Amino acid sequence: MALKLSELAERFGGEVHGDPDTTVSKVATLAAADSDSLGFLANPLYAPQLGATAAGIVVLNADAVDDCPCAALVVKDPYLTYALIASELYPDPELQSGVHPSAVIDPQATVADSCQVGPGVVIEAGVQVGDAVVLGANCVLSRGVSIGAHSRLHPNVVLYDDVMLGERCVLHSGVVIGARGFGIAKQADASWINVPQIGSVTLGNDVEIGANSCIDRGAIEDTVLEDGVKLDNLIQIGHNVHIGAHTALAGQSGVAGSTKIGANCLIGGRATINGHIEICDHVAVTGAAGITHSITKPGIYSGGIVPMDDAVSHRKNSVRFKQLDKMARTLKKLERAVFKDEG
Amino acid sequence: MALKLSELAERFGGEVHGDPDTTVSKVATLAAADSDSLGFLANPLYAPQLGATAAGIVVLNADAVDDCPCAALVVKDPYLTYALIASELYPDPELQSGVHPSAVIDPQATVADSCQVGPGVVIEAGVQVGDAVVLGANCVLSRGVSIGAHSRLHPNVVLYDDVMLGERCVLHSGVVIGARGFGIAKQADASWINVPQIGSVTLGNDVEIGANSCIDRGAIEDTVLEDGVKLDNLIQIGHNVHIGAHTALAGQSGVAGSTKIGANCLIGGRATINGHIEICDHVAVTGAAGITHSITKPGIYSGGIVPMDDAVSHRKNSVRFKQLDKMARTLKKLERAVFKDEG
Amino acid sequence: MALKLSELAERFGGEVHGDPDTTVSKVATLAAADSDSLGFLANPLYAPQLGATAAGIVVLNADAVDDCPCAALVVKDPYLTYALIASELYPDPELQSGVHPSAVIDPQATVADSCQVGPGVVIEAGVQVGDAVVLGANCVLSRGVSIGAHSRLHPNVVLYDDVMLGERCVLHSGVVIGARGFGIAKQADASWINVPQIGSVTLGNDVEIGANSCIDRGAIEDTVLEDGVKLDNLIQIGHNVHIGAHTALAGQSGVAGSTKIGANCLIGGRATINGHIEICDHVAVTGAAGITHSITKPGIYSGGIVPMDDAVSHRKNSVRFKQLDKMARTLKKLERAVFKDEG
Repeated sequence: MALKLSELAERFGGEVHGDPDTTVSKVATLAAADSDSLGFLANPLYAPQLGATAAGIVVLNADAVDDCPCAALVVKDPYLTYALIASELYPDPELQSGVHPSAVIDPQATVADSCQVGPGVVIEAGVQVGDAVVLGANCVLSRGVSIGAHSRLHPNVVLYDDVMLGERCVLHSGVVIGARGFGIAKQADASWINVPQIGSVTLGNDVEIGANSCIDRGAIEDTVLEDGVKLDNLIQIGHNVHIGAHTALAGQSGVAGSTKIGANCLIGGRATINGHIEICDHVAVTGAAGITHSITKPGIYSGGIVPMDDAVSHRKNSVRFKQLDKMARTLKKLERAVFKDEG
Repeated sequence: MALKLSELAERFGGEVHGDPDTTVSKVATLAAADSDSLGFLANPLYAPQLGATAAGIVVLNADAVDDCPCAALVVKDPYLTYALIASELYPDPELQSGVHPSAVIDPQATVADSCQVGPGVVIEAGVQVGDAVVLGANCVLSRGVSIGAHSRLHPNVVLYDDVMLGERCVLHSGVVIGARGFGIAKQADASWINVPQIGSVTLGNDVEIGANSCIDRGAIEDTVLEDGVKLDNLIQIGHNVHIGAHTALAGQSGVAGSTKIGANCLIGGRATINGHIEICDHVAVTGAAGITHSITKPGIYSGGIVPMDDAVSHRKNSVRFKQLDKMARTLKKLERAVFKDEG
Repeated sequence: MALKLSELAERFGGEVHGDPDTTVSKVATLAAADSDSLGFLANPLYAPQLGATAAGIVVLNADAVDDCPCAALVVKDPYLTYALIASELYPDPELQSGVHPSAVIDPQATVADSCQVGPGVVIEAGVQVGDAVVLGANCVLSRGVSIGAHSRLHPNVVLYDDVMLGERCVLHSGVVIGARGFGIAKQADASWINVPQIGSVTLGNDVEIGANSCIDRGAIEDTVLEDGVKLDNLIQIGHNVHIGAHTALAGQSGVAGSTKIGANCLIGGRATINGHIEICDHVAVTGAAGITHSITKPGIYSGGIVPMDDAVSHRKNSVRFKQLDKMARTLKKLERAVFKDEG
């Protein structure tokens, strides 16, 4: 497929810079592009590559256009516009309806004819699978699971009993949804008893979950991810968590049980979010931060980690961290002694 | 099933508050309960919901009973009592003995007739599976694995060679037990050679492992989790680790190789525990803490993370962290100068 | 198999201490060894066990030989020499060529006759599998995947489209390679659109990936792990990351997108490495460190975490961390006031 610059401007907005008849049929990095490639400049880190690019068309914003040696589409949000164009050039593969003969489908399950069911898939009783759903090889859908139309499960996903997915959800390989929450109670003899986890997990529409991430079922009510929530890989979502629409969590972050995160939040990679707290809408949490308390005002929050350093300096400063309270007291004493007359 | 308050008091202990003939048949949160529901109050965070609950019976402790608008079972440990009652109302599903025709069982494996073996399960030579074990779809039991009676493996669990499970163990989906420990030795040409990991993994009775958690096999002797150990999701247990009975680890925590953790410890979520250290019995580690040295006294330990803050303040304070040793020296100098006469 | 000390010295180098005819046929820890066992002493932590060992032969360095009560092989790097000898005593299991009848292989895939293909394996069109590759049960190789000779995939590994593995690679169970990178762009209505991830993942020769680790496909170009890279369990490698030869990452570490790590680096467990940075060759990062900026000089780097403490002290010092910038200003003021005349 070839796309012409003038068409792109028409369909996706933005201003044409250079020859409106320039066409591209693939995407590339600015550094590796040739004249048939679409490139983009969104992160200023890569601005130095613009001047020497051999791309056919670059998507960029107005600030950068003067440095662009080739045709360009000048837009406000180059990353978004690039995403929209690239999605045209690289459409999702079409599904191949049909059930592989090695799939095991309970007669009491309902699977739409338009679905693609891969080898080794297991579908238990009471499961409902909507139109045009793709179930990758070896996925397991336990009793009572429900999957909305046009969702796609990559191979080796496991959904426990009664998990509900909306439409157009994407679950990557190794995802486990609905395992029991970590609810255990200590008995007199020091052993633990499991607290029944009778809630399930409900995902809205357009939710995407990264590889090997886990979402636990609720203790009593469901764990809920609203429409458009995006999770990266290796994320842990504890029981009873509620995540608002269009909130995104980057890789290896974790949310402990019963916490409520608002809509349109951005949680950085490896962030740790305590249990039983509430985070309002429009909060950004920086990578690796530890969020220990509720957040009631939109904004950017950090904490958790201290800066990187060479190992020797870090060790020295770390020792002082353990003396910090003592240092603060000494400092107060000194202040009183030195400035007593100036108070 | 309906349970009457008077019976509950008899069977589980505690004092009856209100009408002893009150019955319930399900559980609910205090906020969502109706008159047929059992609720509980264990976490003081939820105390404000008690006054308006429409529950039939609430399990709570003596402090809260005056605020309870309905019948109650007054006990010392409401969470434990709730767990015991809820387990009656929501029993584990009964197993359906039998082997699915798509399971692949080596003739030299022994699987008790009472077991439930799901589709796509693979059982290699020398495996021994005890009575009434449930093997979920697509589980793989490699050579020489042994599983005690009444254990349950959810779908897509992999056990490497010779892994041994006690009785009543529960492994959630995606668990991998017995992969080789990360033992590598550097050669003269900078490449790595694998150090053979000839130990295996031994789990006691009543061990539960959360989804996608990994337990590596020992380098020489086994990695060991004693009776009643509970692991949440996405946890890493390195080779040669030994975890004492009834110790629980919350999600995404990790224990590096050759560390020994005592019995009855509680390890918070995302905690990082160094290798080659020893932690005594009855230690609690707070969430996200980094435990770098052995702990020889029972108690609560923290460290690792600094408090959350708005991003700007955190950045300012972080800069100072790198000056902390210098600050401490200046402070000492000042102290000497100002208080020299008072020494 | 029995190995004689004199032979070991000849084949692996090192000096014989004690009777050169001593033979061993297995390995053991110093504490548990008997006269038929090979032990080793590499970590000084275990030196106290040397004096009482009943081992037949101990591999150790010159410093320790005087304390050794039995025969010894005296070498410069006992861990490496032990690894080489142990690899002789415990060779990898031989592969059993053949395709299990339950495997599903697309007619347009090429699988060498010498391969071992386990039950439930799924191989899609265009896949190429080299000589003597072992594919464990339920592995899924998506369209266009290529696997070099003598590689081994443990059960339940998923490779997405076009992932390329070199020769002698080892992937442990639950590994997911080639899931889409976390590239999402916000639209005007606050919803996210996926940015197509058209790159794939390329692994060099001799790469090993630990259980349940994830390596995302590149946004445009491939994510690359060069020859001899070793990853432990539960590691996240973001899209477009490039890792140089023989670099090793310990468990639960994570590398955010577009970061370049050099060759021969050692990344500690639970380390977090920011996106879009560059780390030069020969860098060591301590466990749980947060690496936020590029590193241009070889060395050991730390940061991220503060030291462990009892919970009460940690809380006190943590409070002061939030006052650190203020403390530093006060300190400066005091310094000026007290030392003004000494400047």
